[in-house]
Order: sequence, then C-alpha cells, then structure tokens
Amino acid sequence: MATLFTKIIKGEIPSYKIAENEFCYAFLDIYPLQKGHTLVVPKTEVDQFFELDDHMIKELMSFSKQVAKGIKKAFSCHRIGSAIIGFDVPHAHVHLIPINKTSDMNFANEKLQLTTDEFEQIAAQIRKNL
Amino acid sequence: MATLFTKIIKGEIPSYKIAENEFCYAFLDIYPLQKGHTLVVPKTEVDQFFELDDHMIKELMSFSKQVAKGIKKAFSCHRIGSAIIGFDVPHAHVHLIPINKTSDMNFANEKLQLTTDEFEQIAAQIRKNL
Repeated sequence: MATLFTKIIKGEIPSYKIAENEFCYAFLDIYPLQKGHTLVVPKTEVDQFFELDDHMIKELMSFSKQVAKGIKKAFSCHRIGSAIIGFDVPHAHVHLIPINKTSDMNFANEKLQLTTDEFEQIAAQIRKNL
Repeated sequence: MATLFTKIIKGEIPSYKIAENEFCYAFLDIYPLQKGHTLVVPKTEVDQFFELDDHMIKELMSFSKQVAKGIKKAFSCHRIGSAIIGFDVPHAHVHLIPINKTSDMNFANEKLQLTTDEFEQIAAQIRKNL
C-alpha cells in the first residue's frame, strides 16, 4: 500500500508544496516545530534513509540543500537544522527546520498551531526564495 | 585557527576513531546520547552543512551511510537517526545515533557518562562491523 508521503507526492492527499524534481518532493510539515519546517522525501518508497542507494542520498541531500537555502532566505534564522528520524511514516524523510539554538529542533516541543492561510503564506514565502 | 574537529582529524587531539577516507572522518561523540553515538565530519572546514558543495555533501552522506550500517550492526536498535545542528563547533558535523524511538535523539536528554575503556570498546565494536 502506498505510504502517506507517496499519496502526497501523487496529489491524492493535499500538501503545502515547496518544490519537486525528478527524484524528490518538498512540502511543509503540518506539525511544525518552527515556521518554515519542511519535509523532503524521495519519490521512491524506502523506509530508512540509510537504506537509500548512494545516488538517491546524493539527490535527496542536494535537493534538501536548495530548499534549505530558500527557507533560510525566507525566515530570519541562524541556520537550517536537519534531522532524519522517521518513526511516524515508513518513507524516508529529511526534516529541515529554521533554528537559532539547539532546543529549537527538540521534537518533544509543542508543535505550532497554524491556520491554512498561515501555511499557505509560509509555503509561498519559501517558494519565492528558491 | 583550526577548529576542534580539524585538530581531531590531524591527531593533535585524541579521538575514539571509527573510520576515515579521503574526504571524511568519523569518531565517537564524547557527550553521547546513546552508546554508539558518532560524529562524521568533512575534512574541509565549513561551518554550516548546507554551505558544503554538492560533491562534499555526497561524500559525507555516503560515508555516513557506511558508518551508520556499522553502528546498526554493532548495537541492537531499530534504526540510526541523524541530526545536523552544529552550534557547538563551527565545523559541519553529522550526528549518527542508534535509536528505538524519537526521544532517544533528544539533545536535551542527559548525556551518558562512559569510561575510556567503554568508549574504546564501543569504537572497536563499530569498527569490526564496518
């Protein structure tokens, strides 16, 4: 059965899309730790990041870098933190999170509650900075 | 001035070395969240991971994948989590951490207190699984 992320990539489930290319798709995390918190996923369904082949790891991280630069331009922050954890959805995904200190990327923190309008504005802000 | 990690790579400061190649160096984090917590760094001094060029990102992540597989074989865990944060040392570094749940990778958790012998045994255990 297709993963949640494959359904998002195919447009069967809506997402706040940031960008896509031949191999990858980026969209806003709907449980964001910070404004601009984005997920980048490969279009192939592989559960664990380190099970991806070297080519896909390269594609995913190069694409993540471009998206990270857009997020950093769109939101004032010291850097873009990155995490690969993956217990929630069995489809490898890279978290990109604008951070100013280590605790900004603590997944135990309460998630932001944003409206649809706010998500759409955030996605548009990142897209125009890519 | 050379960063702490450059001094480690050059052997000017000792480390519990796991592996190295032309571009990267891996060693145990001395403030580990879990047994096997490893840092992988590029041999070039670049502060932020997403400032690395695409070639170096590819090298660093491919090398991290090999090290992650060794850690996973050496320690019973569900997967190897990965984090790039980097406020402590201005030299890009990838954390590789054996995890069984998201909270195992919470950087606010208390770090393990290990003896030199324990660190050496952990490093040897990973090295023999590479």
